[in-house]
Amino acid sequence: MSEARTPMEEHLKIIQEKHDNLPKIMRNAGIDCWIIFARETSTTPDSSMQFVVGGDVVLSSAFIFALQSDKSLKKVALVANFDAEAMRKKRIWDEVIGYEKGIKSHLKEKLSEINPHKIGLNYSIDDYSADGLTHGMFLQLQETIPDYRNKFTSARKIVNAIRSNKSQTEIDLIRKACEITMEINRDITKQLRLGQNELEIQQMFHTEVEKRGLGFSWQKMGNPAVDVSPKEFGHVLPQSNNVTVKNCTLHNDFGILYHGYGSDLQRMWYFGAKEDVSDELRHAMDTVVHGIRLGADAIKPGIPGFEVDKIVREYQIFRGYDEFKHGLGHQVGIMAHDGGGGLFPLWERYRDLPKMNIEVGQVYTLEPSLRTKNYGSVSLEEMVVVTEAGCKFLVPPAEDFIYIY
Amino acid sequence: MSEARTPMEEHLKIIQEKHDNLPKIMRNAGIDCWIIFARETSTTPDSSMQFVVGGDVVLSSAFIFALQSDKSLKKVALVANFDAEAMRKKRIWDEVIGYEKGIKSHLKEKLSEINPHKIGLNYSIDDYSADGLTHGMFLQLQETIPDYRNKFTSARKIVNAIRSNKSQTEIDLIRKACEITMEINRDITKQLRLGQNELEIQQMFHTEVEKRGLGFSWQKMGNPAVDVSPKEFGHVLPQSNNVTVKNCTLHNDFGILYHGYGSDLQRMWYFGAKEDVSDELRHAMDTVVHGIRLGADAIKPGIPGFEVDKIVREYQIFRGYDEFKHGLGHQVGIMAHDGGGGLFPLWERYRDLPKMNIEVGQVYTLEPSLRTKNYGSVSLEEMVVVTEAGCKFLVPPAEDFIYIY
Repeated sequence: MSEARTPMEEHLKIIQEKHDNLPKIMRNAGIDCWIIFARETSTTPDSSMQFVVGGDVVLSSAFIFALQSDKSLKKVALVANFDAEAMRKKRIWDEVIGYEKGIKSHLKEKLSEINPHKIGLNYSIDDYSADGLTHGMFLQLQETIPDYRNKFTSARKIVNAIRSNKSQTEIDLIRKACEITMEINRDITKQLRLGQNELEIQQMFHTEVEKRGLGFSWQKMGNPAVDVSPKEFGHVLPQSNNVTVKNCTLHNDFGILYHGYGSDLQRMWYFGAKEDVSDELRHAMDTVVHGIRLGADAIKPGIPGFEVDKIVREYQIFRGYDEFKHGLGHQVGIMAHDGGGGLFPLWERYRDLPKMNIEVGQVYTLEPSLRTKNYGSVSLEEMVVVTEAGCKFLVPPAEDFIYIY
Repeated sequence: MSEARTPMEEHLKIIQEKHDNLPKIMRNAGIDCWIIFARETSTTPDSSMQFVVGGDVVLSSAFIFALQSDKSLKKVALVANFDAEAMRKKRIWDEVIGYEKGIKSHLKEKLSEINPHKIGLNYSIDDYSADGLTHGMFLQLQETIPDYRNKFTSARKIVNAIRSNKSQTEIDLIRKACEITMEINRDITKQLRLGQNELEIQQMFHTEVEKRGLGFSWQKMGNPAVDVSPKEFGHVLPQSNNVTVKNCTLHNDFGILYHGYGSDLQRMWYFGAKEDVSDELRHAMDTVVHGIRLGADAIKPGIPGFEVDKIVREYQIFRGYDEFKHGLGHQVGIMAHDGGGGLFPLWERYRDLPKMNIEVGQVYTLEPSLRTKNYGSVSLEEMVVVTEAGCKFLVPPAEDFIYIY
């Protein structure tokens, strides 16, 4: 009874939605022929396959997407004969060819029909998520279709767009993952008491996740992160000697997997009444809440991610805090950190990712954090989906601590 | 309480054993420097890493094994600084370098110290299991150490030997997996009755595997394969309308995962007494049992796999049956079909694998099968480990049906 993996029917729907978007994506990338070339994908997976193919292959297989002169897309699956029937059943291919002896003659024939200008392949020096083609398979392709070697180019732009720009079904699943995350937060709120330690609180979350048959959107050991103040977040796993006391804060960073899609949200609790919160802590929480609002207001399609990061980063400094030592937000999808462009500062370690433009259908986190003098870190994390007009929160954003008293 | 994965301490022991064998393997391969170059290995894994590194890395990392002029092996892990501490704790590296800004200068410096003649990299046109390097990472390496480009060569021979030639700890784990498989077969034997269907019998096996916390060495849907005669094996999943009756045979093909290592064994039951077995079925079973003995007698280090296949194949024809339509046996390790050389015929689809020599420490199956006129298929599968003198069965081989009456 696993709720963690995408059911077959939903998965096929997502693949169909991705196929529908491909002509536009390929035109934007300037590539008229995209080939996924893979084998034994249970050992050496190409992560783009799950979005446009689904399932695994054993022997060398080519999945060809070709923009026709009439702007339509021709989709051909060229697989070993024992994989052909399963591919046909998906009903997403214009043509499925099951080869007997070898792939070579079929691939040559198809490409001479298609007559491509550029052939996009899944390799990238900079971006691991667009680098699913092994070097041996690249060499095999060079050997198989030598006449097309000078047309090979990186399909990074296609692969990025396929994964980043969520379809409606994907957005619905991510929203559902967020809703379940909040539901578990509410259930745990009822169980929180003074004298509980971090490890025991994490275990309470694990129990809720597992009884619902869900998965974790990152490693369970640190999911949720659980921090009882005063503590700096993000460094230490839950400790059994760190215990909730009167007027302490509790922070979590929590993400589940529902039908193959993830959440990544942070919330904070306060053990006491609202009026017990010190001025220092009040100022910190208000800064985080308002910072997230500023970030959400700044997001719009067509601007680079670093511009959004900059606004929130500078606001936090203006409010008298050090800037956060991480990016403002990252994309979320089949995992919590989904790769692609991000709301990152222009630091060397983020390479070219902060300069990538925000696009409709992307899902980002907003997660400023700050450190107080006397009460440890304060942080919240929200998730938004980018729309034509700006962005929308996937679940209502936190406005304050959750009070336990 | 999973018994399916390798516990940390055992895993480190296996890695140490592999490291100890590396100098000999590298000398045989004619490669004095082997580099595993990888990043984000939870998305794009290099399957060789689990045998000599263990765990995952995020940013570009180089694991360097260099044969020194004094015949000793120098082992260097070059990883991002946040991964360095975990690498040091393994105590398997001569040097762990945690880089801050980039890998380039460190890698150049190390290689100029080592001054390699040949640099083995994990790519192979023919063998997926030795093809863990992505094309993007190959390009990154060319860019990072351009002066060494003409020294790059395929490390296939090293990767094959590392995976195929089992260490003592690995052999012990595979033997244990075989013993548990036979234990479950015995437990199920007590539960077998007339009137049970294939699906329900498969479910009985699943219950035994899961209550022991074990894994499956191939997909659960077809593991075990369950066939009530008369039926040809290997094509159809268990059916609810195929039921055990008086004088029928029952066949399974069953493999579990214990501490990360697998089994793959076939057994047959007969619903009746030994004296009820027809002459035709008796002749078939004796042929399979004796065929396996002939195969085991023929195995010795230094001969190619196809020679063993040929002996059993010809014996079966001599006994009046069609030859089996598959190889006599494959290697077993972290999965049931572990890749590398095999006891295969010289057919095109096996490429160069049947010509690879048998070596000490490899684990092979022996699984001839034949089709009778009136009683469906007859087949058994045993597992052997290659020794200096020949080979040894990992559990006592079947001598006959198991009788249910």
